[in-house]
Amino acid sequence: MAEAMDFYFDFSSPYGYFASCRIEELAAKYDRVVDWHPILLGAIFKTTGAMPLSQIPIKGGYAFHDFERTARFHDIPYKRPIIFPISTQAAARAVLWVRGNQGADMASTFAKQIYKAYFVDGIDITEPAHLPGIGRRAGIDTAGLADGINSLPIKNLLKSEVELAMARGVFGSPCVIVDDESFWGFDRFDQLTAFLRDGKI
Amino acid sequence: MAEAMDFYFDFSSPYGYFASCRIEELAAKYDRVVDWHPILLGAIFKTTGAMPLSQIPIKGGYAFHDFERTARFHDIPYKRPIIFPISTQAAARAVLWVRGNQGADMASTFAKQIYKAYFVDGIDITEPAHLPGIGRRAGIDTAGLADGINSLPIKNLLKSEVELAMARGVFGSPCVIVDDESFWGFDRFDQLTAFLRDGKI
Repeated sequence: MAEAMDFYFDFSSPYGYFASCRIEELAAKYDRVVDWHPILLGAIFKTTGAMPLSQIPIKGGYAFHDFERTARFHDIPYKRPIIFPISTQAAARAVLWVRGNQGADMASTFAKQIYKAYFVDGIDITEPAHLPGIGRRAGIDTAGLADGINSLPIKNLLKSEVELAMARGVFGSPCVIVDDESFWGFDRFDQLTAFLRDGKI
Repeated sequence: MAEAMDFYFDFSSPYGYFASCRIEELAAKYDRVVDWHPILLGAIFKTTGAMPLSQIPIKGGYAFHDFERTARFHDIPYKRPIIFPISTQAAARAVLWVRGNQGADMASTFAKQIYKAYFVDGIDITEPAHLPGIGRRAGIDTAGLADGINSLPIKNLLKSEVELAMARGVFGSPCVIVDDESFWGFDRFDQLTAFLRDGKI
């Protein structure tokens, strides 16, 4: 069985979205499977002191430009969201609920569709009522999703996923961990590729 | 005459150092010359609220690992400095003094040698007394350098260079500006290359 690599991402992260468009193809090429881990940068930034890119003086304007330019450079569909950054708790919980009830493959399919809804179709993914529709379009059985998002086990699961991510050194999105080697940023996919190919870097 | 591109860097920045090893070759390939601008991230971070990478919780440990891995990946000599980050005022002023007295080519040669002294040879470049020796090894006439570093015109020139950089949107190191297009980070050299090649991105 193919060994797993862990993919940590926040649904508000454009570079996480770009990574979500490419990571399955990359993993398949080197006989790996991807474990998708939605996390909350808001919670992690409380520890690291970081701010959302777009809110940093001087850097903020560049960040929006870089999102668009990077999308063009990698030929990835992208439309600047009207509201950015956003709270991604509902979306992250929804993916964990699907993972628990319908398995990891459905969860990653859902995650890709949520990213597309936000970064391509301009859908407000902070609104829990929008999530079942996104799920159904991805072929997911969404009966129970609305309640699942608000259930204590799912809330606690997301909290522990975020804690575990930080304990593994995750501080940003995307972060890919393969065989204990961490790669932060879509712009480390070149080094990640070399590591998957050669088993070292 | 080849058109210029502006290269902003702080001598404490590993990614600025990596860029310094590659930027002349890249520029020459696309018939450009490089204007080297030493800046002070410490001053810029007062505006942006940023912290040195290595001092950020969780991210700090990753940063040191990434410096080394990125150097290996790009086959660039690198030795982790004992003291990091450092104050780079003296080094930046020294380069501006050489630029004013011996021209831009000598200044960029000097800058490359200062980077190498810090990131390869383990020399403390915060110490003004070490700078003339680095300069002489690069073939620079360093008579007057020690006084030049402490002169009011050079101090003011560095201040205005930093102000101008921020006014142009520079918030980190390295930053390359070509035809009003900004590229932050050594990991944007792929996009920078495409822009130089195609004139757009």
